[in-house]
Amino acid sequence: MRIDLNCDMGESFGNYKIGMDEEVMKYITSANIACGFHASDPLVMDRTVAMAKENNVGVGAHPGFPDLMGFGRRNMDCTPAELKAYVTYQIGALEAFCKVYGVKMAHVKPHGNLYLTAVEKEDVARAVAEAIVRVNPELHYVALAGKKGAMMTQIGREVGLKVVYEAFPDRAYTKEGTLVPRRQEGAVIHDPEVVSQRALLMAKEGKVISIDGTEIDLEVQTLCVHGDNATAVELVKGIRETLTKEGVEVKPMLD
Amino acid sequence: MRIDLNCDMGESFGNYKIGMDEEVMKYITSANIACGFHASDPLVMDRTVAMAKENNVGVGAHPGFPDLMGFGRRNMDCTPAELKAYVTYQIGALEAFCKVYGVKMAHVKPHGNLYLTAVEKEDVARAVAEAIVRVNPELHYVALAGKKGAMMTQIGREVGLKVVYEAFPDRAYTKEGTLVPRRQEGAVIHDPEVVSQRALLMAKEGKVISIDGTEIDLEVQTLCVHGDNATAVELVKGIRETLTKEGVEVKPMLD
Amino acid sequence: MRIDLNCDMGESFGNYKIGMDEEVMKYITSANIACGFHASDPLVMDRTVAMAKENNVGVGAHPGFPDLMGFGRRNMDCTPAELKAYVTYQIGALEAFCKVYGVKMAHVKPHGNLYLTAVEKEDVARAVAEAIVRVNPELHYVALAGKKGAMMTQIGREVGLKVVYEAFPDRAYTKEGTLVPRRQEGAVIHDPEVVSQRALLMAKEGKVISIDGTEIDLEVQTLCVHGDNATAVELVKGIRETLTKEGVEVKPMLD
Amino acid sequence: MRIDLNCDMGESFGNYKIGMDEEVMKYITSANIACGFHASDPLVMDRTVAMAKENNVGVGAHPGFPDLMGFGRRNMDCTPAELKAYVTYQIGALEAFCKVYGVKMAHVKPHGNLYLTAVEKEDVARAVAEAIVRVNPELHYVALAGKKGAMMTQIGREVGLKVVYEAFPDRAYTKEGTLVPRRQEGAVIHDPEVVSQRALLMAKEGKVISIDGTEIDLEVQTLCVHGDNATAVELVKGIRETLTKEGVEVKPMLD
Repeated sequence: MRIDLNCDMGESFGNYKIGMDEEVMKYITSANIACGFHASDPLVMDRTVAMAKENNVGVGAHPGFPDLMGFGRRNMDCTPAELKAYVTYQIGALEAFCKVYGVKMAHVKPHGNLYLTAVEKEDVARAVAEAIVRVNPELHYVALAGKKGAMMTQIGREVGLKVVYEAFPDRAYTKEGTLVPRRQEGAVIHDPEVVSQRALLMAKEGKVISIDGTEIDLEVQTLCVHGDNATAVELVKGIRETLTKEGVEVKPMLD
Repeated sequence: MRIDLNCDMGESFGNYKIGMDEEVMKYITSANIACGFHASDPLVMDRTVAMAKENNVGVGAHPGFPDLMGFGRRNMDCTPAELKAYVTYQIGALEAFCKVYGVKMAHVKPHGNLYLTAVEKEDVARAVAEAIVRVNPELHYVALAGKKGAMMTQIGREVGLKVVYEAFPDRAYTKEGTLVPRRQEGAVIHDPEVVSQRALLMAKEGKVISIDGTEIDLEVQTLCVHGDNATAVELVKGIRETLTKEGVEVKPMLD
Repeated sequence: MRIDLNCDMGESFGNYKIGMDEEVMKYITSANIACGFHASDPLVMDRTVAMAKENNVGVGAHPGFPDLMGFGRRNMDCTPAELKAYVTYQIGALEAFCKVYGVKMAHVKPHGNLYLTAVEKEDVARAVAEAIVRVNPELHYVALAGKKGAMMTQIGREVGLKVVYEAFPDRAYTKEGTLVPRRQEGAVIHDPEVVSQRALLMAKEGKVISIDGTEIDLEVQTLCVHGDNATAVELVKGIRETLTKEGVEVKPMLD
Repeated sequence: MRIDLNCDMGESFGNYKIGMDEEVMKYITSANIACGFHASDPLVMDRTVAMAKENNVGVGAHPGFPDLMGFGRRNMDCTPAELKAYVTYQIGALEAFCKVYGVKMAHVKPHGNLYLTAVEKEDVARAVAEAIVRVNPELHYVALAGKKGAMMTQIGREVGLKVVYEAFPDRAYTKEGTLVPRRQEGAVIHDPEVVSQRALLMAKEGKVISIDGTEIDLEVQTLCVHGDNATAVELVKGIRETLTKEGVEVKPMLD
């Protein structure tokens, strides 16, 4: 029984600081590191990889759209060839810092709207997956757990990648195993105790209680957590402690 | 007796096309490929590495300042830590495309004002050299041949890099072995026949005729040529043919 | 009987030159000047406004998406508030150069995908129109002539702008008065004589021969021409000469 | 007896928030608003101008180098023509938002390294001043009070601008009336009471106590304050209250 805790990291840029990376790094096991397109810059990447190494946290690339002003959260109608090149470029840039610090890059998780689009559109999912496999076929591909992520997952496998299912302990799920949209009431769960228990159920039994109370299956290898603010960090700390106390091994993907 | 011909490549950006890469690629042996900071974008990098491979041309990174608007030709007062991170990032980004096409990256040559500053300032030379060696100690470091390049060269060696001396067959040299400044009359040589003969003297005998007629020593392993326009391409073609005819092996650095 | 000839201008960027602005400026009467988002930079804008003034060519802003890498040709899912702010910003930036040269800005024409989206989506059309009217209600709003442009036009009028209909003499029209999609055969007309005659029919009689041979009505105040290359410039020259010879006054919008 | 309090505002960018603009806006009388080069984006500019208007705070442009990654704090060797165009562009962009909100732009204060360079180099000072006067000769030009700002001031006057002297109540001055360099001990004054008293002496008597205890003359029309964090905001509040209590009119430049 093991689980990975992944968190977006290294999204500061120049004079702009975002996220409590130093604090949250103590509790997670995988860092999705921004690569200079939707966020981050080379100095931030350098520091973030160094910090991940010090904390024995696995390193992954978090490539996004070339839209710093929109933080990669707006869809851009890029061609598959463009997306493939953008993802290739970003993985490579992060890989250089991995070499500097003697770290083996573990995974790739697309960021923001690139992730959402990869879930929805087959050509985007394929462009991202092919970019990854062409650069390094050993990289794990983080994909949405559950029904909604099936296409993305299948394409990842088709091209030869090891897919890692990700779930969100602080998000409500429908009984079909898809995320309840954020605009809907109850979509985001704030109670730390509830979130920790959901994380435990996901990690230990591969299950989640859906918003209508049904227990459903959800195969999960990594849990997505957040480090935006002090409350978020407390949530992560709680999840980590609960998992450890209950005998779940919290480990990076490559361990 | 062998020599390498290096040329800046892949400096187009999005809708903007610059340079006659397809044409000049036939005559050179090393491509200094822009990495998305002073010029280029991921799609251009992808195409340029593919094209280099098809033509058996060696691939090198051509990192520059983060100044697309100024094409990396204006000095920016970056700290050594910033420069190191910028060079690391850019080498990594290009390396990803090398992996995609199964190409072994051969060298790094700083671009534009970053090159000029590395020649002048020890902390910049060191930042660039350290970035290279940290990412991949097997990369060759292209440095200015002659007296003026001595500091840059020494630092490259100190950090453990193999330094490759570069000279400019179409540029006049002083009798001290430094480049005659561009603003001075006669600084740039346009006659194709003269340029070819200078390239030959450099490659075959490690010598150059200075602007005042003296023959001086100039140890050279690579000649810098240009692909900006049709005239430039003709010049390269002439150099290549002359060298080959006169028995100089024109080969990439890694061959 | 009068008509305006508008052309995209000032799309060079830094070291990257695009378009034959100097040549085509002699034949057109309105310049749609890029404003530094999809293309252009402040130096290019300065030069282009100066050149327009010298040639008595009307000046208009050509705002686009913040996507230099994609040249504003890819859709970006921006919110109306973002688009309004982007268009406001770009008009203002150009207006400063108009003040420097004592030029009165005449019009705004959205660029590339922003134009296409303004034609399709009401909230985008409204965001663009409102941005224009808030900065300067005297600016003319260039909108697609014909049925397809009806919504964009109506919104422009609603907010209080003077709308100027634009047609494309080198593009085929359906009998409904909409542009034949580029991918369809015959969509673009290359014969200079035919293009000139179409321009004449549009300007003189407000009519166009559709792709199936029907003559249809098309109210037009400005014709869009191109300056990308020598052939395009020849086409513009032919249009201008034909119009003048046939007694159509070719004049900027504000004259 | 009157004084203006100016503060850098609107330096957030996209998802990145910086500065306590809402809080500090209540105590200042002039906002130096970033224009999208070293910081800010069009949405931020829109909000900041709106907020300045609501608070009866004067609006000025705060143009910087095109270096978002370096926050405009690194020198870039731009030509005077480039600088002139950059400043023109940025003033224009802000002016558009002033029009939207019916605000009359009051001043221009160069940002970060552009300011430092304008103080040091005559061609930079001239490029900035000429850009301002060409766009709008009624704009006030904020220049460094004291001996060190003499050249910048003189050039501002030469081109026909009204110069406004600025001093820093929280910075130590030498007896020559220049700022004590930040790296020197005692360069920055943190005690709120002391800072308020210095502000009062500057505003009321045009004097400052230098670091060696001498009282020297310093003609001042505006005091530069900061809004980076809660402590800074408290400092500004204290300055404002002290000035008001002591009968100094704290007013925007144009009032």
